[in-house]
Amino acid sequence: MKRSSSKSSTVDANTTPSARNTGNSSALDRLQLKWNGWGTTSHPNPLPDGAPQWSLLRDVLGIETLPATPAKKLADCVLPLNQLPAAAKHGLEEIVGADNVHVSDFERAFHARGQSYHDLLHLRAGKLSLAPDAVVYPQSSSQVERILALCAERNIAVVPFGGGSSVVGGINAHAKSVGGPVITVDMSAMNNVLKIDKHAMTATIETGIYGPDLEHQLAKQGVTLSHFPQSFQFSTLGGWIAASGAGQQSNRYGKAGKWFVGAKLATPQGTWDTEAFPASAAGPNLAQLLCGSEGTLGIMCEATVKIHEIPKAKDYRGYLLPDFETGLALARQINHADIPIAMLRLSDPDETGYFQAFSAGVASGFKAALQKLYLRWKRMGNTPCLLLIGLEGDPSTVAWARAQTSALCSKAGALSLGTGPGKKWYHSRFDSPFARDPMLDRGIGVDTLETAASWPNLLELQAKVRTAILEAISADSPEQSENPSAPSDNPKNAASRTSRTSRKGICMSHLSHSYPDGASLYFTFLFPRDLEDDVAQWQKIKRAATDAITAQGGTISHHHGVGTDHAPWLEEEKGAIGMNLLRQLKAELDPKGIMNPGKLIR
Amino acid sequence: MKRSSSKSSTVDANTTPSARNTGNSSALDRLQLKWNGWGTTSHPNPLPDGAPQWSLLRDVLGIETLPATPAKKLADCVLPLNQLPAAAKHGLEEIVGADNVHVSDFERAFHARGQSYHDLLHLRAGKLSLAPDAVVYPQSSSQVERILALCAERNIAVVPFGGGSSVVGGINAHAKSVGGPVITVDMSAMNNVLKIDKHAMTATIETGIYGPDLEHQLAKQGVTLSHFPQSFQFSTLGGWIAASGAGQQSNRYGKAGKWFVGAKLATPQGTWDTEAFPASAAGPNLAQLLCGSEGTLGIMCEATVKIHEIPKAKDYRGYLLPDFETGLALARQINHADIPIAMLRLSDPDETGYFQAFSAGVASGFKAALQKLYLRWKRMGNTPCLLLIGLEGDPSTVAWARAQTSALCSKAGALSLGTGPGKKWYHSRFDSPFARDPMLDRGIGVDTLETAASWPNLLELQAKVRTAILEAISADSPEQSENPSAPSDNPKNAASRTSRTSRKGICMSHLSHSYPDGASLYFTFLFPRDLEDDVAQWQKIKRAATDAITAQGGTISHHHGVGTDHAPWLEEEKGAIGMNLLRQLKAELDPKGIMNPGKLIR
Repeated sequence: MKRSSSKSSTVDANTTPSARNTGNSSALDRLQLKWNGWGTTSHPNPLPDGAPQWSLLRDVLGIETLPATPAKKLADCVLPLNQLPAAAKHGLEEIVGADNVHVSDFERAFHARGQSYHDLLHLRAGKLSLAPDAVVYPQSSSQVERILALCAERNIAVVPFGGGSSVVGGINAHAKSVGGPVITVDMSAMNNVLKIDKHAMTATIETGIYGPDLEHQLAKQGVTLSHFPQSFQFSTLGGWIAASGAGQQSNRYGKAGKWFVGAKLATPQGTWDTEAFPASAAGPNLAQLLCGSEGTLGIMCEATVKIHEIPKAKDYRGYLLPDFETGLALARQINHADIPIAMLRLSDPDETGYFQAFSAGVASGFKAALQKLYLRWKRMGNTPCLLLIGLEGDPSTVAWARAQTSALCSKAGALSLGTGPGKKWYHSRFDSPFARDPMLDRGIGVDTLETAASWPNLLELQAKVRTAILEAISADSPEQSENPSAPSDNPKNAASRTSRTSRKGICMSHLSHSYPDGASLYFTFLFPRDLEDDVAQWQKIKRAATDAITAQGGTISHHHGVGTDHAPWLEEEKGAIGMNLLRQLKAELDPKGIMNPGKLIR
Repeated sequence: MKRSSSKSSTVDANTTPSARNTGNSSALDRLQLKWNGWGTTSHPNPLPDGAPQWSLLRDVLGIETLPATPAKKLADCVLPLNQLPAAAKHGLEEIVGADNVHVSDFERAFHARGQSYHDLLHLRAGKLSLAPDAVVYPQSSSQVERILALCAERNIAVVPFGGGSSVVGGINAHAKSVGGPVITVDMSAMNNVLKIDKHAMTATIETGIYGPDLEHQLAKQGVTLSHFPQSFQFSTLGGWIAASGAGQQSNRYGKAGKWFVGAKLATPQGTWDTEAFPASAAGPNLAQLLCGSEGTLGIMCEATVKIHEIPKAKDYRGYLLPDFETGLALARQINHADIPIAMLRLSDPDETGYFQAFSAGVASGFKAALQKLYLRWKRMGNTPCLLLIGLEGDPSTVAWARAQTSALCSKAGALSLGTGPGKKWYHSRFDSPFARDPMLDRGIGVDTLETAASWPNLLELQAKVRTAILEAISADSPEQSENPSAPSDNPKNAASRTSRTSRKGICMSHLSHSYPDGASLYFTFLFPRDLEDDVAQWQKIKRAATDAITAQGGTISHHHGVGTDHAPWLEEEKGAIGMNLLRQLKAELDPKGIMNPGKLIR
């Protein structure tokens, strides 16, 4: 089932991400990947039984024993009946070859949903009602165009799929209507770097390429895109653009919209080569509409992106601030001072304490761990905040930026921690997602969400969203319900429940992408799963957090996207006129509405 | 006829631009402005009879005597019959007050066309067929919304007007159809700074505000937008955004799309408050569609923009490069080195020689002037190119950037000229447009056009466009034609002409806005006017230049916009699908097609 592009050499996909990053590489082998979790099946479990972190987690969440809550095996799951007419399947096989149209249980389950907590709840419970009827692996732009023409003609929904790492329901296999056919177009075989121009510092690349493969191909020419989201190892160029993503070093390299120049977009109405200029005043920049389009307008087959020389110097270091407000003010000053930083990451006191304790494997409990840290970081009071500043580029630029940032940090009363915390973060910067599956196996829920707002709104937004999340977690939860399968938002049902348990969660946040006018805040929260109705539990938390975000002037997403999860809040953000514009754009390119139904536009 | 906002104090608009920039200020008094040329009527003529530059111009253009070609006086012009129904005029008066609806000859003529060479040919000849039937000065967003609703109901075309400085036919008063009514909505009374947020470093400002007034209001709070196009004194915030403009210091402050955050847009479908976040992944950024929308989607009433502390240090200095190719390579290196420059401007050899001679008022002829410069700039061969680098910001940043740029310049073999050329340029940076009217009075045509392309395309693009312009100028031109009023592209007519004269022009260019992936090139060309059919002459040159630009991979405009002049080339740049998207966006917001007809979309 391994896909390989006809145009590039292949390699054993069963290598570790780091090995893949330095070897000759190609598409990831789907069979080596978890169909219902993060990463490869062979990836070591970062939280084996007996790991000291379990004690910390029990302490933090106030639970004495952690239940065993394993995921269902694929063999025990039932997939929906295949709705794809035989003639349509035959038509797809004629376009891409029979080898590249798949209807196996594994392929359908692997492409059923993304990687949101909500998705994992469904996948792990074996609720596969959304699985695509077929998965198609095109090898060329013209094949993609033909697939879309066929699907438009036959009214088949099409879900574009890169790495499948969406955490907002962005690639879930919704049909156009209940019972209608839906296929997923997996772009991973289109993974060639087509052109590198070192004068223009742009590259034209097929969009199905995974992060490590992309950087490996570019590195051969001494260049880099340097888009490193946390999902880097398991996400693709096309997904980054479609979701308007941000890499961890976005201060230097920008969100997708900054490095995206233009694309070849296949649509049901034909293929569109967008404008692709350094800058233009020839009407609105229409190519930019693809950033955040989430596959609802068509499928990007190739993209031209801005690249950089591989930075000769990197400097990542930590500082400690006495509180979050002081840290926010410092972050704002650094952004206003036009210092060329690559990254600035400010953790709130909870995250500062928790992550230090967690990554150190401290067994003596959360508070003890924090106290230890406080001792080490004397003078910092009881709400210390870790600030990481990352610099990349020419050695002289890095040295200059380091002097500038150090001066501002000193002035703000920051305690320099040296390069240790920076190196530690850098080394483990893609690791967090691997901890989620083992936590889910032991009754612990973990989810993240994020926003961006202007500087004056950030402090209150952080406090309000944190409170909303913690209150939603700890709100009286039913131990029993008369009808557990009914939706939790049925008032009758909710009223009939007996309120007896109160859960304890932890909510941490950090500022991780910053701009002259504001910044992004990222929230991570852990909580004991409501094993009776964990989807309703998640919906309650999600609703509370997102309502708080919008009430405080934040966007519903800075870099995760909208998908199905944020779609209910989009109109409030875009306005009725904005939503009408989105619908018109879609109607023009996708008049039958086959492209990624349910995403962005409900 | 002076307009004043009800919300801000007024001042005598008959002050010099610099005085207006430091005094309490408001909308410019239309009666003090030329209705058929650049600036105020009281502005001193930079080229009086006997000025030494006339000798240089005669020399450069190879003509012994310069004819007197004065513009027609307004009193001698005939305006078209007013098509606006009395009921509609009454309706407009009900919305904005009778004092703010104008139908005088002066108001209609003043708002008839913009400031392109093509426009000036029509205005100076008294060809006022495009004049609006009424000019309306709204005082508030709600008035603008009501105006558009009324015009939609009555099928009246609406031309949004800021400073009227478009050089691409962007505000020409086209009706929806021949003989239909058209009004111009002059936004200059909406000129209030509504909010300045020094934490977010954003300001919310009414869009009718002129450049000097805007900077004056911001300066009171110690901040600046620093958008300084050459038209700065006579253009407005709304126009800058609508045309996707660029200020001279765009390397630091960005094109409009970079500093534009969001807007309140009045449309025939109601008012839309766009998203306005530091960054977002909540679907495509729809607010950005307003950059370059040219009034075809609605009228921006307020805009939120990014502001900066007023830079404490400025450093503008000159270097001399042996040739344009060396200069381009150096400009590219500086852009790739991530040095925080504010401006980089590289003149080609023609511009280097001509502007030095012209501004020095050298009377001894162009070649002699050049030779003198060559002597001064020894070692530079016969194609020296002036490079200006402008730095702005914190003194330490400026010092650091100066060291970085100096090192790269030295390495490239540049000869440092010190701060003299930089200061000279800075002092006269808004002056060029004032020289056009006196040249037009003496039979000399002068026009400019610009593009942007990726670095690898720039050298050949510069050469090809220059050649195209010079060939179009010098192509055999008829001394007489049997039917001078027929269009020049009528082959029969062209064939019947007698070819006898060959004109000599000069074409100069410079790189003036640069990016990691490419840069803008700006062309200025002077030529003896074909007094028999100067519109056809202009069309021939424009067509040749724009065809050459698109053939060499350039955009049809980097910062002037599309208007009516570039509209024929837009589909080649946007693609058929892109044009369909534009039409759909317009159809959604402006279903009757009343907004700025003929611009952007033909």
